[in-house]
Amino acid sequence: MAASVNRQIVLKSRPEGMPGLDNFALMQATAPEPGDGEVLMRTLYLSLDPYMRGRMSAAKSYAKSAEVGEPMVGGTVGEIAASRHPKFAAGDIVLGSGGWQEYALSNGAGLRKLDPAAAPVSTALGVLGMPGMTAYVGLTEIGQPKPGETVVVAAASGAVGAVVGQIAKIRGCRAVGIAGGADKCRYVAETLGFDACVDHRASDFRDALAAACPAGIDVYFENVGGAVQQTVWPLLNDFARIPVCGLIAQYNLASPMPGPDMFTVLRKRLLLRGFIVWDFASKQGDFLRDAGEWVRSGRLKYREDIVDGLENAPAAFLGMLQGKNFGKTLVRVAK
Amino acid sequence: MAASVNRQIVLKSRPEGMPGLDNFALMQATAPEPGDGEVLMRTLYLSLDPYMRGRMSAAKSYAKSAEVGEPMVGGTVGEIAASRHPKFAAGDIVLGSGGWQEYALSNGAGLRKLDPAAAPVSTALGVLGMPGMTAYVGLTEIGQPKPGETVVVAAASGAVGAVVGQIAKIRGCRAVGIAGGADKCRYVAETLGFDACVDHRASDFRDALAAACPAGIDVYFENVGGAVQQTVWPLLNDFARIPVCGLIAQYNLASPMPGPDMFTVLRKRLLLRGFIVWDFASKQGDFLRDAGEWVRSGRLKYREDIVDGLENAPAAFLGMLQGKNFGKTLVRVAK
Repeated sequence: MAASVNRQIVLKSRPEGMPGLDNFALMQATAPEPGDGEVLMRTLYLSLDPYMRGRMSAAKSYAKSAEVGEPMVGGTVGEIAASRHPKFAAGDIVLGSGGWQEYALSNGAGLRKLDPAAAPVSTALGVLGMPGMTAYVGLTEIGQPKPGETVVVAAASGAVGAVVGQIAKIRGCRAVGIAGGADKCRYVAETLGFDACVDHRASDFRDALAAACPAGIDVYFENVGGAVQQTVWPLLNDFARIPVCGLIAQYNLASPMPGPDMFTVLRKRLLLRGFIVWDFASKQGDFLRDAGEWVRSGRLKYREDIVDGLENAPAAFLGMLQGKNFGKTLVRVAK
Repeated sequence: MAASVNRQIVLKSRPEGMPGLDNFALMQATAPEPGDGEVLMRTLYLSLDPYMRGRMSAAKSYAKSAEVGEPMVGGTVGEIAASRHPKFAAGDIVLGSGGWQEYALSNGAGLRKLDPAAAPVSTALGVLGMPGMTAYVGLTEIGQPKPGETVVVAAASGAVGAVVGQIAKIRGCRAVGIAGGADKCRYVAETLGFDACVDHRASDFRDALAAACPAGIDVYFENVGGAVQQTVWPLLNDFARIPVCGLIAQYNLASPMPGPDMFTVLRKRLLLRGFIVWDFASKQGDFLRDAGEWVRSGRLKYREDIVDGLENAPAAFLGMLQGKNFGKTLVRVAK
């Protein structure tokens, strides 16, 4: 195959506080040739996710940092452009980790073939992918919601929050979302079918949240932290469970924000547990079976916020960190 | 029976911050007569426990506050002085909740007859009672220690901590205690058989704790909070479990102390869970069977810090809040 240009977004510098466009650089390389046992993937969709903010920092985390000068890491749906791997053929559509670039090599490890007839392939990065599974395992395995309980989730129109609330409804719970702005709240309540959605930007946020949770909160799926957490905290019931999945409102603070006071943990007998989706890797089969069925039957709805062109990934990522996205953020890198 | 004097320690006023002797008053009443279906217990031992500090406050908690002017609540071992209850006879020794007084009535609910031949009856308030069971259920049900893991507990010479570390050893773990002063540390390491015990009052506490936990900390049994917690926190391993049982170092602070930062909860995938012993009431049979066997075989050792005379209960209680006790704190009210 003829050598192609491979555009890449590399990490140019590590941010302090909120990242900016100048932390990224668009570079041009030559698309590599697959060696024996390798495939070359042509990126169709790149997933943008809050966890990537952590990868931009040098601080120790559960995953390796991105390296300065290297392409940002990220999940992708791609088409096999060339294969020297026995299990993949040119034209196959695969879920992988190609990163923020137009072409990426893989030795096949972790690649999963997608069936475009079963569901739009972009869903493998959202409702049927890592964000959906994060919602599923966090709510089910840690939150353990019982019918009639109240489940609260912030960023409720986002890739994870939307799934949390809809599964809560499927499980017979009262689902209350928190989102930024009237449009998102309307979508969460009317389209996704949450029992209520409260605007955290509204001046009456505190009272509105309390009113939406007349029986208190039994599960708070924590994906934002910050001021929202502090508003939720007094409403928690005894024995509430708090899966801690993300803290997007705190990712850009210079110093750590103090956590909730331990007296409340003790007095209310709360359970807090941090997790990442791969801590529950063994549940992937259950997730794909359940979520696949719910998507096909229309019980589990999703919304994608798609930006065209790799060059627009940094701006879309920064917008997502500020809540400007509306649904699962994706970059359409090629068609 | 002739009317007896019933001396009582009543809550005279609610403390702000550290309680003082002036929050208590010694009163004399007449010992009541049991009505039909009731027994009169003559207190032999009164248990003093950190949770009682919470009962002195009006703040909402998992249990009702003590009332000003009423005797302080508390677990007791007593002798049945008079019985009009079919299941109890004069002379029976019972575990109950007689409170800080020489005589108490009971309708029999929650009373448990003790066999003085099986174990010293005072142990029903300590190693074979609520503190022992608190250690047992918190460590076993929440901490879930695996052989080879490191378990850390503070107040390690105390009623709960001593049992936590010894059960950790029985379970094949490395047990590291934290205690105040060289005498307590020597007792914890040499007599109780912990692998190490670190003095939190020593200037090298931080380094000594790190040295005692060369493979990090997998279970931190939280019963003190405060500065000890902050020293433990950086040593926690990924997936560490933190049963939150008490926060004695913080009970007398005017305002709540900020909790551990949520980033660490997320990054290390920590589990924190507040509990009280009765959340696991169904485990009492298991506890009594296991701990009884361990005490009889000498695998589970205990130490009692016994003060004579009800009138000395307030001073003993205040001393315990400051770590002046050495072992399970008991008041011998009568012989």
